[in-house]
Formats: sequence, C-alpha cells, structure tokens
Amino acid sequence: MVSPSRADFFAGLQPGGKYDGIVGIYRHNISADHIGIYDKELVSKLPDTVKWIAHNGAGYDQIDVAACKERGIFVSNTPGAVDDATATTALYLLISSLRLFAQAEQTLRAGKWKSAHKPGAAHDLTGRTLAILGLGGIGQRLAEFAHAFPMRVVYHNRRPAAGAPAWCEYFPAERLDEMLAQADVLSVHVPLKAETEGLVDEKMIRKLKKGAVIVNTARGKVIDEAALIRALEDGHLGGVGLDVYPNEPEVNPRLLEFPNATLLPHMGTETCDSQKKMEVRALTNLRDYLTKGKGADIVPEHRQ
Amino acid sequence: MVSPSRADFFAGLQPGGKYDGIVGIYRHNISADHIGIYDKELVSKLPDTVKWIAHNGAGYDQIDVAACKERGIFVSNTPGAVDDATATTALYLLISSLRLFAQAEQTLRAGKWKSAHKPGAAHDLTGRTLAILGLGGIGQRLAEFAHAFPMRVVYHNRRPAAGAPAWCEYFPAERLDEMLAQADVLSVHVPLKAETEGLVDEKMIRKLKKGAVIVNTARGKVIDEAALIRALEDGHLGGVGLDVYPNEPEVNPRLLEFPNATLLPHMGTETCDSQKKMEVRALTNLRDYLTKGKGADIVPEHRQ
Repeated sequence: MVSPSRADFFAGLQPGGKYDGIVGIYRHNISADHIGIYDKELVSKLPDTVKWIAHNGAGYDQIDVAACKERGIFVSNTPGAVDDATATTALYLLISSLRLFAQAEQTLRAGKWKSAHKPGAAHDLTGRTLAILGLGGIGQRLAEFAHAFPMRVVYHNRRPAAGAPAWCEYFPAERLDEMLAQADVLSVHVPLKAETEGLVDEKMIRKLKKGAVIVNTARGKVIDEAALIRALEDGHLGGVGLDVYPNEPEVNPRLLEFPNATLLPHMGTETCDSQKKMEVRALTNLRDYLTKGKGADIVPEHRQ
Repeated sequence: MVSPSRADFFAGLQPGGKYDGIVGIYRHNISADHIGIYDKELVSKLPDTVKWIAHNGAGYDQIDVAACKERGIFVSNTPGAVDDATATTALYLLISSLRLFAQAEQTLRAGKWKSAHKPGAAHDLTGRTLAILGLGGIGQRLAEFAHAFPMRVVYHNRRPAAGAPAWCEYFPAERLDEMLAQADVLSVHVPLKAETEGLVDEKMIRKLKKGAVIVNTARGKVIDEAALIRALEDGHLGGVGLDVYPNEPEVNPRLLEFPNATLLPHMGTETCDSQKKMEVRALTNLRDYLTKGKGADIVPEHRQ
C-alpha cells in the first residue's frame, strides 16, 4: 500500500488508519518521492507496533537508524544482492574513464567520428593500479573483475577486510596518502554516514597523482563535489566516472562540460537480476522477523 | 616519409624518386587517407627491391596479401599487441549493451535523469552466456574478462583454439546453430577476408535467441548491416555494441536511432599502451627482416 504524500502516510498511521497495527515496513527509495525520507520526524510518527523496516537496497542513508534504534525498531538492508550489478557499473565507469569511451560516443553521435580523440590520453587497464576506498562486498567484486586484466589492487578500510584475497594490498589510515599517490584509479565504495560525508575532499584528491581517475558508485555526498570539479578544471584529474550525485536527480551542469566525465543516472543496481535479488532479500528479512523473530540483515548500527 | 597522395607515392617509387631502393615499408591504416589502400594496383607499382611490408595493426584487410605473395613481398601484422585493448573495448560494449548504460548517459545528458530506463530490460553479465565467434588472441582475452564474473563462455572456430582454457566450450560448424541459440551475447572476432564478409548474416542473427546482443570490435563488413538493422527494428536483438562499421568513418544514420545501440568510433586499439606495443611490434618485424632475413609476424596467408 503506497501513500501519495507524507500527510497521507501519517494519517494512515493513526488508530483506525489504513496502516493501523502494522508491525513491519518494506521500504524502497522511490517512496521518498512521495512521503519523503525516513528522518527523525517520520520515525517518531511510526506506531509502537512497528518493529522492523526492511529496506530494499544496500545504502540506507535515507533512514535515520539512530532514531529507529531509540524506538526499538530494527532496520535491515540487502547486502550482497547489489554487489555484482554495482561492481559492474564501477568497472564500466573505470573502462570508460581510462579509455575515454563516453566522450568518443558523443563525438561519433555528433557526426565527428573520433576527431576529438587523442590516443596518447587513453590508457589500458592492465598493469595499472586500482585503489578501492571501502573494500566491502561491492569493492571485492570490483577487485575480482580488475584482477582479470590484471590491475594491481590496493585498498583502504579502517581495518583489513575479512576474506580479502592476498593480492589486495591493504593500506591503513597512516599509509592512506601513500596508497593515493600510487593509484591510477580511485573507486569509492563507502556508505554515506556522518563520518563519510565529504570524505574524498580537496586534500585526498590532491594526493592522487596527476591524471588519475575517480569512480563513484557509492553516494554522491561522499565526495566534495566542488573539489572534484576544481581538479577536473585544472587537469589534476584525468577523468571521472560517476553514477551518483549529491542531490539526485539533479546533476551539477558543470559536470556535463567535461569531455572526460562519464555520467550515469544512478544505475548501479538497475538490472532485472539485482532488483529481484534485492526484493527477495528485503522480503525475506520481513518474513524471518515475523516467523523467527529476527531477519539476517540487520544494519551494523544495531550491533554497536 | 609520408606521401600526400597516391600519385605522389607512385612518383616516389620511380627510379630516382624519394622511395627509390626501399626494401621495407612500415604501414599504418591512416596512410589510406592519403594514398589509398594497398590493393592490387598499388602492390603492382612497388619496385622489386621491396621485400617486406610491416603493417601496424592486427587486421590487414587493407592489404592485398595475395598480390604481395605473388610478387614475393612478405606482409607482417602485430598480433597480440592489440589483444588487451580490443578485448577491453568488447567488454565495455558488452556491459553497456546488457545494462543499457550508453542510453542512460544520453538520457542524463538530455536533462532527463533515468526516465527512459526500464530495469527489467537490463541484465547482469554473471551467469549469462557469451558466444565468441573467432577465439584468437582478442577473443581469449575477452573470455578471461568474462570468466571473472563468471559468464559461461562458448566459441566457434573452424578448429578448436590452441591454448583455449577448458571452460571455453567449443562448437564446431555442425553445432553452430546450437551455440547461437544459447548465446545471450555474440561477440565477433574474426578477421575480414573474402570468406568472412557478411558471415554474420540474416540467418545467423535469427538463430540467436530473442533479446540477445551482438558486439563487434572486428570489422564492420563481417556483419550484414542491413540484417542487423532489421533485427534491431523488430526487436529480435536486445541491443548492439559496435566499434566498427562497413564504411568507416561513415556510420549508418539508422544506427543512431536505436536507443539500445552503443556506438564507438573504432577505438579498439586507441590507447597509448597498445599504440606503443603495435609500433614496436611492427618495427621489430622490419628490423628482424633486415638483420635476420625474417620477421616473426608474417601473416598466415604466407604459410598456406
């Protein structure tokens, strides 16, 4: 049952309303277009009967988990279900950025064949260094794809990633600058949280070598967009491949002007396969809560 | 020494001309823009001193090898040097076609975010079947990339490919239809010769399952373009990813109208890395001819 507006949603939650007595909620990001995000206000209006919010997606930055936790409501997401599709999106952006393919297609479609192309500016993936910021499930899938070329794979997490293959070289915080200086490509795979907002800032971008490429399939706000644009303007960055933006569906028009920018409209999980996997995973969490008292994919904040 | 025209080139070959006494030629496809292709006429005008044409590139369809052979002129190409860059191009086209990424970028750049996108029409690579027509060096590199997902990899050559991994399933001519019926993607990697012109014809295209995708990074004329366009028009094909066209640099304007077509302007080898590898390889053949009497990369026609 979808609500057309926030007011309608809140009305439905009242005693006797259409949502009276609900214990679980299946949530999709598109609901934000109608009822807004699950912020403190929305969470405060949920009736005491609600015990589980099963979010469809890996990133749950549209849900105030702290507010849910205070009210004893569990939040689950769909880790793993999106790994393959999102890592493939990152690989595509990586190839396009190093090879300047998106630009080449624009030139062809403008009737100018490859006139704008400089082969010296395009690079093979093989032998180059991919730095992964946040080696979780998506990052590990991307690492596997890159290893097939092979690219050298380095990564930074707060702690070494469990189950990371030996050929993924770990760089702790004190060696982050060293990692950035070696990267031909930096691919961002950290969730958006208070502590990751603007994480890829001016300082981090400038630690990359000149001509390096940044790929982002995580969340737009993890990168300081103004700093990214400055680095494209002065040629410090060789290109960007973006699937996410700070204020979707808005795209900063300045980004459209860089020929070395490949820009996708948040397509990371847009396949029939991953949509199905995500739905099944989210609904399985709701079912497991109802039948066993707990779903498997409770978000990490509940474990802290 | 580059000639500005075919007439200038022929004049230079005369006794006393600027090319008088040459024994070897380093050839690049861009020379065709000035002096035309190495057809029977051009080859007939080469002086008897010429013994080696070192072509820069894997495909040498712009050289009449039979005419060279008759005149005792060896032709070499640069196998291997282009494998990585061209296979990466095929992978990019494959991803874009299954995920509808090129279309998504066009929609974003038109200010329409992902409004035209239907997630049900996009597919993950993982678990799907990639059929490779012509498993040589480029095809094997693509197979390795696809195996990382993994995709299932099947292929057709006249004979089983030497050194093909066990997970590449071979389909001989009598089982070609069977292979096509199982393919989610058909990627074309055969050289253009008299016997491969129009090889991917109406009949072959219709043996593919509905919604399959064709990727071509070989040569445009290997595919019957009219049959390809018909199959896009009636929805038999789910998409195409093309790097090559029958009459480059012309692109059939009809192709630009299909939202599910990803179109690159023959970028297969356009990286600083592969350009360097190709140049070194071509020049090594010339040097080896001069110093040892033979270069390593004589094209197969000389061995027949």
